[in-house]
Amino acid sequence: MSTIPTPELSPGFLKSLARIAGVGHLLTDPADCWPYGYDNSRLHALPRGVVFAADEAQIMALVVLCRDAGIPLVARGRGTGTTGATVPDHGGIVLSFERMDTILRIAPEDRLAVVQPGVLNEQLQQAVGAFGFFWPPDPTSAASCTVGGNLAYNSAGPRAVKYGTPRENTLGLTAISGRGERLRTGVLTTKGVVGYDLTRLIIGSEGTLALITEATLKLTPRPEAKRTLRAAYADIHAAAAAVSAIMAQPVIPCALEIMDAAAIRAVRRHAGLDLPEGVGALLMIEVDGPAACIDQSVAAVAAAAHHAGLIELRCAESAAEVAALWKTRKALSPALRHIAPKKINEDIVVPVSRMGELIEGLERLSHESGVQIVNFGHAGNGNIHVNLLIDPDDPAAVESAHACLDAMFSLVLQLGGTLSGEHGIGIAKRDFVDREIEAPVLALMRDIKRQFDPAGILNPGKGFPETAEPTATNR
Amino acid sequence: MSTIPTPELSPGFLKSLARIAGVGHLLTDPADCWPYGYDNSRLHALPRGVVFAADEAQIMALVVLCRDAGIPLVARGRGTGTTGATVPDHGGIVLSFERMDTILRIAPEDRLAVVQPGVLNEQLQQAVGAFGFFWPPDPTSAASCTVGGNLAYNSAGPRAVKYGTPRENTLGLTAISGRGERLRTGVLTTKGVVGYDLTRLIIGSEGTLALITEATLKLTPRPEAKRTLRAAYADIHAAAAAVSAIMAQPVIPCALEIMDAAAIRAVRRHAGLDLPEGVGALLMIEVDGPAACIDQSVAAVAAAAHHAGLIELRCAESAAEVAALWKTRKALSPALRHIAPKKINEDIVVPVSRMGELIEGLERLSHESGVQIVNFGHAGNGNIHVNLLIDPDDPAAVESAHACLDAMFSLVLQLGGTLSGEHGIGIAKRDFVDREIEAPVLALMRDIKRQFDPAGILNPGKGFPETAEPTATNR
Repeated sequence: MSTIPTPELSPGFLKSLARIAGVGHLLTDPADCWPYGYDNSRLHALPRGVVFAADEAQIMALVVLCRDAGIPLVARGRGTGTTGATVPDHGGIVLSFERMDTILRIAPEDRLAVVQPGVLNEQLQQAVGAFGFFWPPDPTSAASCTVGGNLAYNSAGPRAVKYGTPRENTLGLTAISGRGERLRTGVLTTKGVVGYDLTRLIIGSEGTLALITEATLKLTPRPEAKRTLRAAYADIHAAAAAVSAIMAQPVIPCALEIMDAAAIRAVRRHAGLDLPEGVGALLMIEVDGPAACIDQSVAAVAAAAHHAGLIELRCAESAAEVAALWKTRKALSPALRHIAPKKINEDIVVPVSRMGELIEGLERLSHESGVQIVNFGHAGNGNIHVNLLIDPDDPAAVESAHACLDAMFSLVLQLGGTLSGEHGIGIAKRDFVDREIEAPVLALMRDIKRQFDPAGILNPGKGFPETAEPTATNR
Repeated sequence: MSTIPTPELSPGFLKSLARIAGVGHLLTDPADCWPYGYDNSRLHALPRGVVFAADEAQIMALVVLCRDAGIPLVARGRGTGTTGATVPDHGGIVLSFERMDTILRIAPEDRLAVVQPGVLNEQLQQAVGAFGFFWPPDPTSAASCTVGGNLAYNSAGPRAVKYGTPRENTLGLTAISGRGERLRTGVLTTKGVVGYDLTRLIIGSEGTLALITEATLKLTPRPEAKRTLRAAYADIHAAAAAVSAIMAQPVIPCALEIMDAAAIRAVRRHAGLDLPEGVGALLMIEVDGPAACIDQSVAAVAAAAHHAGLIELRCAESAAEVAALWKTRKALSPALRHIAPKKINEDIVVPVSRMGELIEGLERLSHESGVQIVNFGHAGNGNIHVNLLIDPDDPAAVESAHACLDAMFSLVLQLGGTLSGEHGIGIAKRDFVDREIEAPVLALMRDIKRQFDPAGILNPGKGFPETAEPTATNR
């Protein structure tokens, strides 16, 4: 990663910072700050300081301090992001939300919960589950990622195919803009059209517009029943066609996950996978709904899954069988980590009807570049996690992978898709953004950013292509 | 309405306007322009010209012309809005979208439709219905309102309680900003986090940020079965409590409409209403879903509706019975129009759990002010159409009504609600907006508007409190 010269913090700034943070809630020793400089992208940059905020007033004071001094301020949940969006590559201060982890209110009668941003996704699910509800966004990292992070990236997960992303499941926010002002956006209700929709604008903005201090989340009742199916196909094209067929009938599954042949091979070594011979692709399907019609719903989805190339369709009847069916999928991430610890993991999206073309194109790219590609992901949304298995310490491999990525992004856009479904842009994908977003729109987005954050201190350089424009830290 | 001096159009401007509009697609005679100066709010202001655009290039040229001349440009669908948002009270040009009424593409395999803004809501529903889909937003005016108008106001309708508003059912837009630039926002897929969410920012912005020229709409499969129930209660409090109970269980109705005693009285004169004695409030409930479990779904909702104060619960078994049950509700609008042709119709929202308090407060306000108030609306969202039945030609009545409205808005905000659920702000409610939206947020919204529309030509003065700032037409 290119290094951007970051200014030392002045003694006066440090003194103010210590006062705002309070005793025991500021790190400035580089060794202490080090772990707060990375995320799951494995990118790293050393912050000059780390503040563990406890409330809104403190965050407001911190923003004002950084704004006046022109020091970057980077929000951080638990660092589970995969694009480097929380990596302070422009230096400055990391603001950790880990102490702001309180569920402030659960109102089952209004189907909402009010939470602080540092609440873990799983912690929220357990708390609202006690009232018979869930919050749909369910990233794989749910046990360790924060709601604030989910909102910052608009992170979803398998359930989004039926229940939507954070943008469809958040009613309102409280946030501190880069101006240092408190913004209350949205409503407590499922309808509201007073003023512009700043709630959705802030969601997915990766901490570049405002720092979320409180979120009002829309809750969904837990379905009575859920069934798991596993459909094995001869090849990925058969599986992709089945996904189209499943998504074209009325019963929307609550998960519709795909694994290609390379992904299956990667986990073959694990004993007891219990997969028939000749399987070239797998679909993991979950169907939920009222107990009274779960059998009919499963039948409708199963009928659509019965596509040419289907080798086996199994439906779990017990919790043990569910676990057995998911075993292949769950084994995938550790297996890939073992094979290629520094793999590149993309999360492109194409319209469901174009998924077959995408897969063909990826096979061609893999063949041409010599880069092994493993595909899995949320097929019901057309959201595929394309994994390039390379050794990043081999310069030739890195070069091939980058050429391959470049060609893949072109393919995705040509198919009417988008470069990111749920991981966001951060540092990793910022230089590709202008291929998807046209220049006038990009310029407008930068202008909007300037209204929220005139000094350019909030997570500078993230989410957009880097420009020659002076940034907060080097102007 | 206060009159704002609007400049005459110069001969040079008119010549360019005629060239851009093309023969037969421009009105400038005041008598011809007159009908394009009102909407269903009954507010009126005479536009200086009306252009009937046919394509994007023309709209871009029109924006550039108006931008350079500082002439207001007001987008208009079919004028069914109720807040004066399309009324050109700052003068200038009305841009009618009625010629841009083509459904460009229906892609059942990707569950989307691409339409021009002048397509009527009902026209869209019929076209996608042929493929087994619907688009959830369903304003009462569906037969005559445009999709562009639905998007401009984020207009919903009864189905929003289960299926959401336009913001939850739109994937992307093409629009022309006030700068005269073409903006492509959003994606073709149900996931996407590249750049800021300008799609939702433009939806609900009442033509103040950009002119929508094309919309990609998310389609939903039509449910197999639907059942209609009518629950009659002794009073509105019992009905409000039943709404809370219905919304706290997992089966979400696809419509949950309420009528209070005054609304029932207004339609009593209509024969054959077939309502038992002593009814003080009605709920109209629709439940949809797979045929296999519709009985169980109805039973779950009916059980929740069985609340203290229930007088009668009927479930329609045939189309004729459905029509009979809806008769009371359908008779309401004509009856109210007869009683008070110029009634004030608000569409405030409160959290469902606060609806009882709202109703009590409204009864108190009606009693204190002497203004007759009729309440009905989308109870499942807490979205109540509060109708103040007054004669606007009686100055004393108007004064009482305004005092009553003022107190009502305070009550709504105190209950955690919002001033508008689906009608928007326009002219009618702009002076109340700063009670709901705090000053820093309002300032930020104005700053965002300036980025989209630096010359301030797009629907100036709408949606926000009027300020002392110079506007495009009088600076």
